[in-house]
Amino acid sequence: LKYEIIVTASTGNAGAALAGMSAAVGQKAIIFAPKTAPQAKVAQLLIFGAKVILVDGTYDDAFDLTVKCAEEFGWYCRNTGYNPFTAEGKKTAAFEIWEWWRGAHREYHKQIGDETDHKPLTIFVSVGDGNIISGIHKGFKDLIQLGWMARMPRIVGVQAEGSAAIANAFHGNTETITSVSAKTLADSISVDLPRDGVRAIRAAKETDGTYVTVSDDEILKAIGELGKVGVFAEPAGAAAYAGLVKAAASSVVGGEDPVLVLNTGSGLKDIQSAMRAVHEAPIIEPTLEAVKKVL
Amino acid sequence: LKYEIIVTASTGNAGAALAGMSAAVGQKAIIFAPKTAPQAKVAQLLIFGAKVILVDGTYDDAFDLTVKCAEEFGWYCRNTGYNPFTAEGKKTAAFEIWEWWRGAHREYHKQIGDETDHKPLTIFVSVGDGNIISGIHKGFKDLIQLGWMARMPRIVGVQAEGSAAIANAFHGNTETITSVSAKTLADSISVDLPRDGVRAIRAAKETDGTYVTVSDDEILKAIGELGKVGVFAEPAGAAAYAGLVKAAASSVVGGEDPVLVLNTGSGLKDIQSAMRAVHEAPIIEPTLEAVKKVL
Repeated sequence: LKYEIIVTASTGNAGAALAGMSAAVGQKAIIFAPKTAPQAKVAQLLIFGAKVILVDGTYDDAFDLTVKCAEEFGWYCRNTGYNPFTAEGKKTAAFEIWEWWRGAHREYHKQIGDETDHKPLTIFVSVGDGNIISGIHKGFKDLIQLGWMARMPRIVGVQAEGSAAIANAFHGNTETITSVSAKTLADSISVDLPRDGVRAIRAAKETDGTYVTVSDDEILKAIGELGKVGVFAEPAGAAAYAGLVKAAASSVVGGEDPVLVLNTGSGLKDIQSAMRAVHEAPIIEPTLEAVKKVL
Repeated sequence: LKYEIIVTASTGNAGAALAGMSAAVGQKAIIFAPKTAPQAKVAQLLIFGAKVILVDGTYDDAFDLTVKCAEEFGWYCRNTGYNPFTAEGKKTAAFEIWEWWRGAHREYHKQIGDETDHKPLTIFVSVGDGNIISGIHKGFKDLIQLGWMARMPRIVGVQAEGSAAIANAFHGNTETITSVSAKTLADSISVDLPRDGVRAIRAAKETDGTYVTVSDDEILKAIGELGKVGVFAEPAGAAAYAGLVKAAASSVVGGEDPVLVLNTGSGLKDIQSAMRAVHEAPIIEPTLEAVKKVL
């Protein structure tokens, strides 16, 4: 499209992707992020050489400003859930899940001695703007239309209780999204007015899925539990697992159902939240006696 | 080997590998790290459920204490450059380089219209304990012995000026390593007495390589330069690239030589150093006027 400048609003992850890819190909990128974005995410944008402008406001303020700037200055706007290509990118996650599932599914049915396809895969994905869940839904629809996949997975959206505009609409049985005043430590899914809400609702509705909401405490607990099996997730990533825990407790999924949880961000991107999930390490003198005491 | 507990000293990266893998298989791990380790590295260890003990001292103090504890308590000691298996692990990086090089090399000679193997690959690797450089050297030796690789690459070790015990010995033409009092912002290669020094010297000597040293300022500059092509490296990782810059200036490598630079750590692990390589982002009100002013 030959634009000189690509711009996006981001809490940090979408911006990191744009900034990193832009650096790799010599494209100019401008990122508007809320000034509350975690330091690691902002550092990454700056290192990639993007022009970073922090907004004294919310992600939604950054979003609106980005759209205005794109119009005013003739920049190409890549905003999530606004630019139609973002869902096309995110749908490739569905292709990866499908590749994995073909192998895992065969293995699973071999183990239970049953070749029939009783139980669909249930996928848990954290939801902010609603673009990832919409994208993977589209990916699976494409695969089914191509005849490459027999059965649509169930898709369960997970939102933070403090940022649940889409879950609210889903359970209110409406496609009209009402803005909330988002407040959650999961910065990547902290959104007042989700921009891809309607498709996000349909992703769950059309796949026999649902929406669950999780508290910040449940998200922090999930960070610790994922860590103990070797996965270090940022809060928004861990939220999806917290959603699985909640869904299992309320029999949205059964103990025998195959499930997949999407982790959408590295824990290294938000150390402050991670440290709230664990106890500080002790500091000792480098002596055997000090070790014995601390053990 | 059926040990109940595996212990290692680490500035953070070796510990993260041990902690993550231990979590994945239900193994108990204890990590001794200097209390100066970057916060992100310590958080990762804690999240993975390892027992973390911060030592009021250097990496070398943590190292010695770990060896003592392993003897006293019957733990399995995985210390880098002490446990022989660590080089066996690190040598797999040589296999990956070889796989890449077979393809790239063919392409390279096709481009210059010449099928002969004039120029060996020159590899730049940052050196602390000396275990990575020793490991990749061993990996290439294995490949040559197997008859799978025709020619040994040149291996160039890069040390921080403030932590250059191995480079000092190399250029002093001795295999006797003299301890230094290490001082560099590249925490992962900050070592007083390298534990794999002799093999690290030979890795350069036996491959027609050499050692170069780089200042902390050169490392910070390298972080910024790598970022601008889409690579976000921690200081120790960027040091290898700073070494290439220096080697190119002093004709250790020529402009036509194929080179490979190993990045040994994600920049997300040390945000504070990264922020020293860039300018802070401005904070503005979310208005068009404020954007115009800041542009």
